[in-house]
Amino acid sequence: MSTTTAYRADGVTLREVALRDGLQLVKAWPTTSQKLEWLVREHSAGVTHFEVGSFLPANRAPQFADIRELLSCVTSASAIHTSALAMNERGIDEALTTQVSEIACVVSATEAHSHANIRRSRDQSIELVRYAAKRRLESNHGALISVGIAMSFGCSIAGPVQPAEVLKIAEACLSAGADLVGIADTVGFAGPNQVYELSAALHALVGSGRFVVHLHDTRGLGIANASAALDAGCRVLDGSLGGLGGCPFAPGATGNVVFEDLVYLCETKGFRTGIDIDALIDVRRTQLEAMPEERLYGAIARSGVPKNIDWAAGGELRRQ
Amino acid sequence: MSTTTAYRADGVTLREVALRDGLQLVKAWPTTSQKLEWLVREHSAGVTHFEVGSFLPANRAPQFADIRELLSCVTSASAIHTSALAMNERGIDEALTTQVSEIACVVSATEAHSHANIRRSRDQSIELVRYAAKRRLESNHGALISVGIAMSFGCSIAGPVQPAEVLKIAEACLSAGADLVGIADTVGFAGPNQVYELSAALHALVGSGRFVVHLHDTRGLGIANASAALDAGCRVLDGSLGGLGGCPFAPGATGNVVFEDLVYLCETKGFRTGIDIDALIDVRRTQLEAMPEERLYGAIARSGVPKNIDWAAGGELRRQ
Repeated sequence: MSTTTAYRADGVTLREVALRDGLQLVKAWPTTSQKLEWLVREHSAGVTHFEVGSFLPANRAPQFADIRELLSCVTSASAIHTSALAMNERGIDEALTTQVSEIACVVSATEAHSHANIRRSRDQSIELVRYAAKRRLESNHGALISVGIAMSFGCSIAGPVQPAEVLKIAEACLSAGADLVGIADTVGFAGPNQVYELSAALHALVGSGRFVVHLHDTRGLGIANASAALDAGCRVLDGSLGGLGGCPFAPGATGNVVFEDLVYLCETKGFRTGIDIDALIDVRRTQLEAMPEERLYGAIARSGVPKNIDWAAGGELRRQ
Repeated sequence: MSTTTAYRADGVTLREVALRDGLQLVKAWPTTSQKLEWLVREHSAGVTHFEVGSFLPANRAPQFADIRELLSCVTSASAIHTSALAMNERGIDEALTTQVSEIACVVSATEAHSHANIRRSRDQSIELVRYAAKRRLESNHGALISVGIAMSFGCSIAGPVQPAEVLKIAEACLSAGADLVGIADTVGFAGPNQVYELSAALHALVGSGRFVVHLHDTRGLGIANASAALDAGCRVLDGSLGGLGGCPFAPGATGNVVFEDLVYLCETKGFRTGIDIDALIDVRRTQLEAMPEERLYGAIARSGVPKNIDWAAGGELRRQ
């Protein structure tokens, strides 16, 4: 597999990350069969790309303990593109024994966050990317390697982050063997102008199909930020169904940008996603059955898609 | 008063419309003293422009029956810019006997909505604007005249609306004597590209300080649409505190774009609003005391403004 087949350069790719980023901090999580139902129903609605879990030790992150089982069910069954997080050498080695389509690594934009988050320096994190690329070659595995740059728009520990610094890290990751780099607004500090500027710079550096914008909706700017990213040439965006997620250190903060609202945004901007929004909204019921105590977010699930929009005619309103 | 003094051409003006548009459909509303507390507290937080009610017969719209009393208290007390809706000749005549700073008229973008909403044609609505300008001159009143073009981005009855049609109506309103024209996404159909295009065209036609973008957040695109309007040169935007409002024909639909989130958006985009967001958020308590059954919306009230943002340094994050 290569980025050219896994990610379209001529359209937009939306990745649903609720089963990883959305479960990062929850106390209760879906069973493996509930996760599978979730994935299969979303895939039927037209979603193709999912982050499905993390290769962390089960005692540290029990919600991801079924990652191997999940991957073996999903990848043998369908054309679903799966991504899973690997935080260290052990995780990468394990990932390469599975059918995962993409191994996701993380590098922090600031030294302070890097040490607090994973007790490695940024350079050591980039070395991990190099390790992943080397091991992939040795094992002749087809997985892509992606790197998310955490705190790309400002850091809760170190404060401001210069775009030039993020670009330097992105280049280092690509040189180390990453296929894709992502800029993540980990704690929801970004505004649309900031997202536009960094996305445009990254677009100039690596082109459309090779960078991801990963946004959180903490302060209500998630969809505006996504719109700005698309304006700047970004063609790969992350979101979580129902906006699942949050942060234990920020009471009331929401999680990732709401996936179904992101789909609606793309459609209004003329990007055909191939996703049936009504069918997608219906998967929220599976989510709530699996996690009845979680609060879901989102506007399009509440209001519905306008009934008189003619998607086939490019999203124009239809006469009644 | 003229548009040049009432609306800055060199910055952004945000208008809080909850006391009119937000009360349009509610079953219970604040008392006059609660409305005054609301206005005074918001004004203390830095808000300068308010839509405060409507000159409708008290039996049709009892929530606005105190408009004269409200205006006499507010305009004598402060530098608050007040706007109130007038839907017919009687309303305009009454407005001109008060100290209102701005008389707001409405013209529909489509004939079908115009007849359904006010039982007048679009041309007859434009004639009403001409009447307002003539009566203002005769009475030597200093009020501005503004016109909101309802359904500018698509009509719930007639379907698609061509931008050229909206621009033609805007020109006709200005020729008839309006000082400002507004484009309203009355039922929340607009997406950011559509808002950008129409705003840019209107900006080319009339300049920054003479047009308003009035958005609803029905489908979660309100803030993204506001960001697009600002990008296109719009410098006057409406919002309602707590997103107060809604539509009886669209269950679950929210009202105007959330005012406090709009303020935060502007600040992240480098527009200094002069509004203290924390103090503004605190006014939601007054809102809830006055209308305990209303649901309030908004993200920044939930998450708070990032503590480490240095507004004085242009909204940069501050090192901890």
